[in-house]
Amino acid sequence: MFRSVITGAGSCIPPIVKANRDFAQDIFYSSDQHALPNPQMGIVEKFKEITGIEERRYASDEQIASDLGAIAGQNAIEDSGIDPEEIDQLIVAHNFGNVGKDRSQMVAVPSLASLVKNRLGIRNPSCVAYDILFGCPGWLQGVIQADAFFKAGIANRALIIGTETLSRIIDRFDRDSMLFSDGAGAVVLEYKESGEDGAGVLSAATETHAIGEVDYITMGPSYNPGSDRHTSYIKMKGRKVYEFAMKHVPMAMKNCLDKSGVKIEELKKVFIHQANGKMDEGITKRLFKLYGIDQPPEHVMPMTIHWLGNSSVATIPSLLDLVRKKQVPDHVLAPGDVILFASVGAGMNINAVCYRC
Amino acid sequence: MFRSVITGAGSCIPPIVKANRDFAQDIFYSSDQHALPNPQMGIVEKFKEITGIEERRYASDEQIASDLGAIAGQNAIEDSGIDPEEIDQLIVAHNFGNVGKDRSQMVAVPSLASLVKNRLGIRNPSCVAYDILFGCPGWLQGVIQADAFFKAGIANRALIIGTETLSRIIDRFDRDSMLFSDGAGAVVLEYKESGEDGAGVLSAATETHAIGEVDYITMGPSYNPGSDRHTSYIKMKGRKVYEFAMKHVPMAMKNCLDKSGVKIEELKKVFIHQANGKMDEGITKRLFKLYGIDQPPEHVMPMTIHWLGNSSVATIPSLLDLVRKKQVPDHVLAPGDVILFASVGAGMNINAVCYRC
Repeated sequence: MFRSVITGAGSCIPPIVKANRDFAQDIFYSSDQHALPNPQMGIVEKFKEITGIEERRYASDEQIASDLGAIAGQNAIEDSGIDPEEIDQLIVAHNFGNVGKDRSQMVAVPSLASLVKNRLGIRNPSCVAYDILFGCPGWLQGVIQADAFFKAGIANRALIIGTETLSRIIDRFDRDSMLFSDGAGAVVLEYKESGEDGAGVLSAATETHAIGEVDYITMGPSYNPGSDRHTSYIKMKGRKVYEFAMKHVPMAMKNCLDKSGVKIEELKKVFIHQANGKMDEGITKRLFKLYGIDQPPEHVMPMTIHWLGNSSVATIPSLLDLVRKKQVPDHVLAPGDVILFASVGAGMNINAVCYRC
Repeated sequence: MFRSVITGAGSCIPPIVKANRDFAQDIFYSSDQHALPNPQMGIVEKFKEITGIEERRYASDEQIASDLGAIAGQNAIEDSGIDPEEIDQLIVAHNFGNVGKDRSQMVAVPSLASLVKNRLGIRNPSCVAYDILFGCPGWLQGVIQADAFFKAGIANRALIIGTETLSRIIDRFDRDSMLFSDGAGAVVLEYKESGEDGAGVLSAATETHAIGEVDYITMGPSYNPGSDRHTSYIKMKGRKVYEFAMKHVPMAMKNCLDKSGVKIEELKKVFIHQANGKMDEGITKRLFKLYGIDQPPEHVMPMTIHWLGNSSVATIPSLLDLVRKKQVPDHVLAPGDVILFASVGAGMNINAVCYRC
């Protein structure tokens, strides 16, 4: 049986470290444009408690999203050992394109996938390069699309990259700006004869909720009343997103796991989009609860949010890369291990992939 | 045998008519920022001769790309007669997101597909809504992706929309701004038991050329030396694009047609991305030449560019919709007719789809 197998992973951890205390002098405003009371240090401490984020990474001034994506892609190619000319789908997930430092324009012509293909020096015209926009779940959706292309017989090897520079589109007067970071992650996915062990993608699930939920994560003007009303920044209805995720993500994960035929007891790890530490813990708890298990097993959920923040489409592939390279304490993967990827974000979109290592 | 069948088409022709003469008072600059000599009327006349464009359409001030896309999508749904809740992939191709009148920011969070899904009132969470960025060939690539999803068994009904408001990102000091227009087109594609006639998608081909070609169509500052250097507009190396298209598109179309097993003599129509009248004629001529045919048959190439301009991802589905609805003189489609779609654009990307009506 042929399955889609991850044969390499890579990431780009941007160079600039931005700690919570670096926000302590900033002035934050509420969504109704009132300055929040001091002391800022209290806000910053409370933020850490809720989100688990202590610091985050920003790209250097001259880097743009496609640069980070090319680095992550190159690393994944080297990790897999494939000849890049053999890649037949080069998929780049993002939501804001390339945004230069101190610019507000998001640029995606040519597509980031074309720019990455150029940077990687891939000449083969049959390597189809395109971008997908699907909120934070975009990278995982790229995996689901590549798996479908393989099954349909139109491709055999894909490079799937998630890259984002959220530091360029955050409103510095909004506390939520502390959540967001920059980064890129990538995998090489290949359609291979799966041996006795049955390694590869086992199942997938995707949902788009776009009725009342469509504006939970959107673009809007700064909370600073003195700002230009015509420039938009990422805006999030935090509580709505949290409640939505808690309600829908565990069930989507369960649907995906059940489709794979794997029992919950066999599930070794969950790789959840690093959006918010408390939320991710809640999602995992509820997933196990759906199977009547009160407490998830220890070390089931590797996390990087405390030092990498929420880099949107980049969080899951970066996390996977770091775990594969044994850089996340208490988390190792062994052949045969079943893991579950899950993501939630703007759209609102949810997806999950069940995978046997 | 199951095949992907177009069961409905729709388009949105924006309301504002902009004729060539409306540009006669504008001041154009060359790419090296020198004002072009008057009289403008000469430039405008020469432009028509080369491109075939007499007028073009712009969205009204309050419309954004997702609005046009929703209208085209609604029309396609009505044309097909399906229940929109049965759509399981809602794919929106664009390259610039939503750009408000007199803004420079391109906004695609949430994705345009989510906004369209919202506007169409589709509640079913299993209707997966995402955006694809692939230059002008994005809409046709959406068709190729949907066909793959069908074959892979993850979907059966797709709504594929192309929508763009190029009027919002053109440099009014660049003659090339006269090429571009706004619009949206859509089809409903369904995986259906194909009878004796074998209607549906027969074959497809895609290429991405991103080495020297990556900057043939890109974003750059205005040609007006007095403009803000930090605001980017669509920029095209016209001659390079033309030569690239002439060299590669006919061969890609031939590869696609040959894969389908259909003979050139059976080919009824070519639906080519409406980029430039002369270029499209040249491509069709070369395609037939590749089969040793000196002169393409009469009425093989329906065109709308003279009155709709180049609306990027929207040109092919709009053209198809107008032909299906008998609004293009001398062009009708009958059951069993084999047609070839082809597109070329930023990336540089090329694709083709062979289809039996």
